[in-house]
Amino acid sequence: MNVLVVNCGSSSLKYQLINSDTESVLAKGLCERIGIDGRLVYQKAGLDKEFTEAPMPTHKQAIQMVLDALVNEKTGAIKSLSEIDAVGHRLVHGGEKFSSSCVINDEVIKGVEECNDLAPLHNPANLIGVRACQELMPNVPMVGVFDTAFHQTMPATAYIYGLPYEYYEKYKVRRYGFHGTSHSFVSKRVAELVGKNYEDLKIIVCHLGNGASVSAVKNGKCVDTSMGLTPLEGLLMGTRSGDLDPSILEFICQKENLTVSEMLTVLNKKSGVEGISGVSSDFRDLTAAAESGNEKAALAIESFCYRVAKYVGAYAAAMNGVDVIAFTAGIGENDDNVRSKIMGYLGYLGIGLNEEVNKKTHGDDAMISTADSKVQAWVVPTNEELAICRETVALVK
Amino acid sequence: MNVLVVNCGSSSLKYQLINSDTESVLAKGLCERIGIDGRLVYQKAGLDKEFTEAPMPTHKQAIQMVLDALVNEKTGAIKSLSEIDAVGHRLVHGGEKFSSSCVINDEVIKGVEECNDLAPLHNPANLIGVRACQELMPNVPMVGVFDTAFHQTMPATAYIYGLPYEYYEKYKVRRYGFHGTSHSFVSKRVAELVGKNYEDLKIIVCHLGNGASVSAVKNGKCVDTSMGLTPLEGLLMGTRSGDLDPSILEFICQKENLTVSEMLTVLNKKSGVEGISGVSSDFRDLTAAAESGNEKAALAIESFCYRVAKYVGAYAAAMNGVDVIAFTAGIGENDDNVRSKIMGYLGYLGIGLNEEVNKKTHGDDAMISTADSKVQAWVVPTNEELAICRETVALVK
Repeated sequence: MNVLVVNCGSSSLKYQLINSDTESVLAKGLCERIGIDGRLVYQKAGLDKEFTEAPMPTHKQAIQMVLDALVNEKTGAIKSLSEIDAVGHRLVHGGEKFSSSCVINDEVIKGVEECNDLAPLHNPANLIGVRACQELMPNVPMVGVFDTAFHQTMPATAYIYGLPYEYYEKYKVRRYGFHGTSHSFVSKRVAELVGKNYEDLKIIVCHLGNGASVSAVKNGKCVDTSMGLTPLEGLLMGTRSGDLDPSILEFICQKENLTVSEMLTVLNKKSGVEGISGVSSDFRDLTAAAESGNEKAALAIESFCYRVAKYVGAYAAAMNGVDVIAFTAGIGENDDNVRSKIMGYLGYLGIGLNEEVNKKTHGDDAMISTADSKVQAWVVPTNEELAICRETVALVK
Repeated sequence: MNVLVVNCGSSSLKYQLINSDTESVLAKGLCERIGIDGRLVYQKAGLDKEFTEAPMPTHKQAIQMVLDALVNEKTGAIKSLSEIDAVGHRLVHGGEKFSSSCVINDEVIKGVEECNDLAPLHNPANLIGVRACQELMPNVPMVGVFDTAFHQTMPATAYIYGLPYEYYEKYKVRRYGFHGTSHSFVSKRVAELVGKNYEDLKIIVCHLGNGASVSAVKNGKCVDTSMGLTPLEGLLMGTRSGDLDPSILEFICQKENLTVSEMLTVLNKKSGVEGISGVSSDFRDLTAAAESGNEKAALAIESFCYRVAKYVGAYAAAMNGVDVIAFTAGIGENDDNVRSKIMGYLGYLGIGLNEEVNKKTHGDDAMISTADSKVQAWVVPTNEELAICRETVALVK
């Protein structure tokens, strides 16, 4: 079965066409600057990337260009659109309505719209992508895979905030968590790698990318995660602040004469390791700067690692123990220095770092803990598109 | 030496007169509703409390009444004011200027004033108390003991927020931590109880009162603590929210049409366990309600304990291990149910709870972990007044 995986943002759209039998990517790419000027990136497996500047005033036109490229005579991955058997859509916020993926119908769309409030930048854009695909491929089944769904198993002790309870009742203000597709994929994958039943393990997944979150997965169910109502909470991220004293918002709003919305823009776009370092949100830049003696870049890296270690410690307590720690996403898969620093805090759990394996592991599956460690640590590349493909197949087969 | 310990708020003032040689309290009490109508509570050791309704338009008049009561012919604890050898003042915020207690002089007062910005409700009130005492006891040495001082040993990785660095440089926005006098007192005391060198231990202090905070004390120095720029951050508290997604402020401000300052009032005064339960900020009320089947009260208690456990876990990682966990303050000293629930998460550290000892320990020193635990857990009553007295004596002797 061929599944088109679509991740649609407000002015961009990523896609992959995956053969679910072989789990190979037939083609992938993205549309950028939708509604501005427009650029299509398309790459058939085994060939170079193609770049096409072309106006795409709407998402429908963007998706039409993707479909045209997929069936292009020369570099198309398929011969006809009838070879697309299903579409899997990444949907950001499913609120409390969606605790798993589901086949998209009118009722589901209505349910996602009801969560728009919780993700005003993402859900409407996701739905534009869904509708555009529906118009262009009216007879192809579509599946929605939610970033929040995996975390819906959290108990109330983990998801309730210390707020007047009416905010939960009236507005559904609670911890939701994000990156759920990745946390689900990686936690299942690491159980396979460890060779134990998923349902018997206590796993901590550190999804460390430009956005970053940690989750605690106990006996196959997510019991806590570091992102909250929105992706702002938790770890220090590329440009997001992560956890901070809520009083700081009032303090800085007064000092800098900002509205709370302007302050949130600072916290989302100008904070995190970029804010501390003044250098970059990219860990490669930070590492280079730190190596050249930039103390704030060094502080940003150290602080990032320290906070990951504290979340790992917190979730070990949340589950009363941990069997496996998994590192994934851009930084988690590739930055052995960051992994080494995080692991440096965790010796008390009975984990030792296999320095040699850690050093050479970049983007591959590998156990980076020593053989005699009581808790295993692994690098496990995430693959959200493949996870969406699998979820889609499971529902439309 | 007799030390008058003064904790002066905006409309109230607590005091104790302590004999530093015997460390016994000679008299104690408080002035309430200063500037409103005024009431003095005075209790000489061994006698009943006396209540005097009397106008006290200013703090100076309030302190005058305290001094009059202390030398009162019938129930006075001393014969003459010359028997007060020093005054120890609790000062809330010492910013980065004060990493220890100090004898109060003009320069110190100026330094505290420069921190007013960081604690606008507390520091000015504290200084009013200092000045009133100086006027009434011009020749008595005074010492300032800061709530923040003990935490000044935190490394930058623990105190820096993920914000644009200029907020730290321009406004000194960073983690400070509070309850420092208690964390210092209890961590030193528990080292004595364990019978090891303070400098050789990794200690986690859980100060659980209506305000609540956790600190990590490694080799005699605080390395992290849960309160931040203000006392709002960290644990769920009586009426304070503790940690939450900063985006919630914008979300609720819009929904409820609140200013950010109004929102901060909600987070400080109407949140925490009281907010979740809708019942009370007092754990005795919550326990009673939970026992009568109130699910939100039960959720508030469970969430409180869960968060404490997560902080203990996080700080075990921060120090790469923990030797001793100490419970103190109102809830920590008296609520065996809360301690039991927190300890329930921590078995993975090699701690077992001695249920019998835990159940009967209310307000006394006691080791509540089992004899074979790898990590000891203790109940250690805090005594901030005594700690202030000791700091004062050390500086004026």
